[in-house]
Amino acid sequence: MAKEMADIGLIGLAVMGQNLVLNMCDHGFTVSVFNRTVSKVDEFLKKEANHKKIIGSHTLREFISSLKKPRKVMLMIKAGDPVDAFIDHILPFLDKGDVIIDGGNSHFPDSQRRYEMLKSKGILFIGTGISGGEEGARHGPSIMPGGNLDAWPHVKPILQSIAARVEGEPCCDWVGEGGAGHYVKMIHNGIEYGDMQLICEAYDLLKKALGFTYPELSKIFQTWNQGELNSYLIEITSKIFTEIDTDKQPLLDKILDVAGQKGTGKWTGINALDMGVPVTLIGEAVFARCLSSLKEERVAVSKVFKGPSEKCMQDKKVFTEAIQHALYASKIISYAQGFMLIRHASEAFKWKLNYGSIALMWRGGCIIRSKFLGKIKEAFTKNPDLKNLLMDDFFKKEIRRTEKNFRLTVSEGIKLGIPLPCFSSALTFFDGYRTERLPAYLLQAQRDFFGAHTYERVDKPRGEFFHTDWSGTGGIVSSSSYNV
Amino acid sequence: MAKEMADIGLIGLAVMGQNLVLNMCDHGFTVSVFNRTVSKVDEFLKKEANHKKIIGSHTLREFISSLKKPRKVMLMIKAGDPVDAFIDHILPFLDKGDVIIDGGNSHFPDSQRRYEMLKSKGILFIGTGISGGEEGARHGPSIMPGGNLDAWPHVKPILQSIAARVEGEPCCDWVGEGGAGHYVKMIHNGIEYGDMQLICEAYDLLKKALGFTYPELSKIFQTWNQGELNSYLIEITSKIFTEIDTDKQPLLDKILDVAGQKGTGKWTGINALDMGVPVTLIGEAVFARCLSSLKEERVAVSKVFKGPSEKCMQDKKVFTEAIQHALYASKIISYAQGFMLIRHASEAFKWKLNYGSIALMWRGGCIIRSKFLGKIKEAFTKNPDLKNLLMDDFFKKEIRRTEKNFRLTVSEGIKLGIPLPCFSSALTFFDGYRTERLPAYLLQAQRDFFGAHTYERVDKPRGEFFHTDWSGTGGIVSSSSYNV
Repeated sequence: MAKEMADIGLIGLAVMGQNLVLNMCDHGFTVSVFNRTVSKVDEFLKKEANHKKIIGSHTLREFISSLKKPRKVMLMIKAGDPVDAFIDHILPFLDKGDVIIDGGNSHFPDSQRRYEMLKSKGILFIGTGISGGEEGARHGPSIMPGGNLDAWPHVKPILQSIAARVEGEPCCDWVGEGGAGHYVKMIHNGIEYGDMQLICEAYDLLKKALGFTYPELSKIFQTWNQGELNSYLIEITSKIFTEIDTDKQPLLDKILDVAGQKGTGKWTGINALDMGVPVTLIGEAVFARCLSSLKEERVAVSKVFKGPSEKCMQDKKVFTEAIQHALYASKIISYAQGFMLIRHASEAFKWKLNYGSIALMWRGGCIIRSKFLGKIKEAFTKNPDLKNLLMDDFFKKEIRRTEKNFRLTVSEGIKLGIPLPCFSSALTFFDGYRTERLPAYLLQAQRDFFGAHTYERVDKPRGEFFHTDWSGTGGIVSSSSYNV
Repeated sequence: MAKEMADIGLIGLAVMGQNLVLNMCDHGFTVSVFNRTVSKVDEFLKKEANHKKIIGSHTLREFISSLKKPRKVMLMIKAGDPVDAFIDHILPFLDKGDVIIDGGNSHFPDSQRRYEMLKSKGILFIGTGISGGEEGARHGPSIMPGGNLDAWPHVKPILQSIAARVEGEPCCDWVGEGGAGHYVKMIHNGIEYGDMQLICEAYDLLKKALGFTYPELSKIFQTWNQGELNSYLIEITSKIFTEIDTDKQPLLDKILDVAGQKGTGKWTGINALDMGVPVTLIGEAVFARCLSSLKEERVAVSKVFKGPSEKCMQDKKVFTEAIQHALYASKIISYAQGFMLIRHASEAFKWKLNYGSIALMWRGGCIIRSKFLGKIKEAFTKNPDLKNLLMDDFFKKEIRRTEKNFRLTVSEGIKLGIPLPCFSSALTFFDGYRTERLPAYLLQAQRDFFGAHTYERVDKPRGEFFHTDWSGTGGIVSSSSYNV
């Protein structure tokens, strides 16, 4: 082992941790490593013996003492209690001004709490989202660091050099104070839920309505990947269609249609409800996974409700393009909703987030990386105060261009009985968002009728509330104990 | 003031509290009242002096000493910290075996916590949902009590006698342990959010697509109220259409289309996400309120996206019936989702809820009361283990009867650009739920491709997980640190 001091230490040698270490070494940094199960340290060193820049330790004390000051300790461990436990373990060895970086999938309120707790002890905390899977970690992930700004100069050179790059720019920049980094990672994952479900819906239509074979589907997705839909998820989907099982049959046909959901997609949906921002598409995407898990119920229900017997009468080529447009329009709306939530959070938590910078961080390295995110970056560069992506000239044009096919596709799904929860949700959101006067005034009348909740008027200033004695039985101005 | 001892004491003389007191008096109970702002006690007594059965107190000590043992103290105060504060205030005056009833809109985890805390002190806690607004409180609400079963015999005669009755049965029965009562009330309110939004969507179509006037709409809703849609909300909506403002114009046109949402609908959506149950319709209903609140943004966006220029070519009479069917089918699906969530909660929290009894409690008195809930009660009476309402013979028949019109209505909304988020969400859920094989297998392939999340196979037992080296670059069996 080298006597050299390490630029950074990393705890947690699962795949993501190992790959980040190798990535850092590739960029000339010396990395000290530690793992709770100590044998993993030796295994790793043995396997990667050609990397002279890795220092292995068998005790925390040894590990910490191998680090240059201010010490930078990165945790790549399971989110939740283990993070708090490890922070408690290493705290006694640290000095004021040292930096702890949590690179796991922590929930943003936990990062906020840890940031505050460590700040009070003089330790600089960074909670950073990292996306890109194993491959990304090894060769350039998207990195979204937030927390204590004083820590940023110390870790910036390392994090930016290991991150993915797009046109020379690293997909890593400072996000904001406290839990902002993990918040933005949470939204990334929520959007990822949406993107994946949207692809499933497009695929389901192509297969069930138009009857394409897997090789044909692979070609369609390859073609789509050359255009506006160019993205990592479209690319890997085109490859998935070609995968053959040991029995020479398409592997896809062997995979059970039950998708897991327990994590960040759910958090995004809950956060959207909590903040009162209509992020309907991610909500439906999470629920679509929940529905997939009710496999036995679905099998039973499928025998009872056969659905419409209609066949798709659309021209294959024409309707394939319609589906492409529907996928693209839905995706624009999903990102518009995601950035609405980010803007709301930025204001609520006073994070002063840079929306263009977030788009750039997602432009490369991460699971949702796409050409499209470059357009979002451009939109926010042109107008950093842009209230909604749909109001940007480029996206306006794109929505107008695809709107007709978008409607056609959703209608066709309804006619054929093919479930398109996210396509539909995107379209109904779009139609609601572009409606000057929604029927919510009837809803307000109902609430005032049964619960004296009062309403505002179109001919009076906002903030003035009125009550009508609808039932004619007399009533009070407002109800304080009963709130719907 | 009478020297008589009170059967029950009530704290909190806002409208709901006052009306419950009068309701109890009507049924022969003597009620002691107290209010934090003591002057309210005197005002109330003065106003209702003809009620000899009300005892007013100016201090908590006086109030408590006016109660028969075991004492029953009902709180009708603002949910949240005030409930904890008042419980702390009255605890020193209570003896073991006394009963505290929280009749406010508390969140069910709070009721669960209070139940446990008070149980440890020998005090019997009940958290009860009460629905029906002021009118219901005065003349017969729906009451959903849960908490400590030992308290039930003491309060049962009072609560059941003041509750609404349907065919002789009180709309009040024991729900379950701990927070079960407030949980069921939360679901009630979530369903109420859905019902109201569904009515708004039906109305929006009738008005925008078919051009009905308010008097015509009132008649349509009156007619609907005679049939399968018979319900309190349909009834009051028919009345709302006839309400005229001081300038002789329809009042509805003066009401701002911005609906509030901060409460129990949001909790229901969050709980559904948390439990992983696809309650999509309530989710969309909550988000529809959020969207309504973005009035300024909507006005701006409406100028940019004009939407389709198509006109509705449907026959007025025929399409009105289609809308009626869509409303009815969506409502069935919403209640099916709501009861899915209730069943999940009952199992998760070991509440052993009686689904038929819940339907009966909602059959009368509350805001969502309807003929339809009688059918739900019947379904669960016939088969208490019914897994889903859609599998009941009656609802099967009704869905099949309305399905075609349901699809027609949603398609028409999409064609015309009239947002129908809850209609659409109900339909896509239905189509997903009756799909034996969802495209979630593609999603599982994607997750395994980029994150080695593994998948299950259709030709292997559940619980066995497989990984494919999709990209051909080698990989590990599963990734533990990166969970999407």
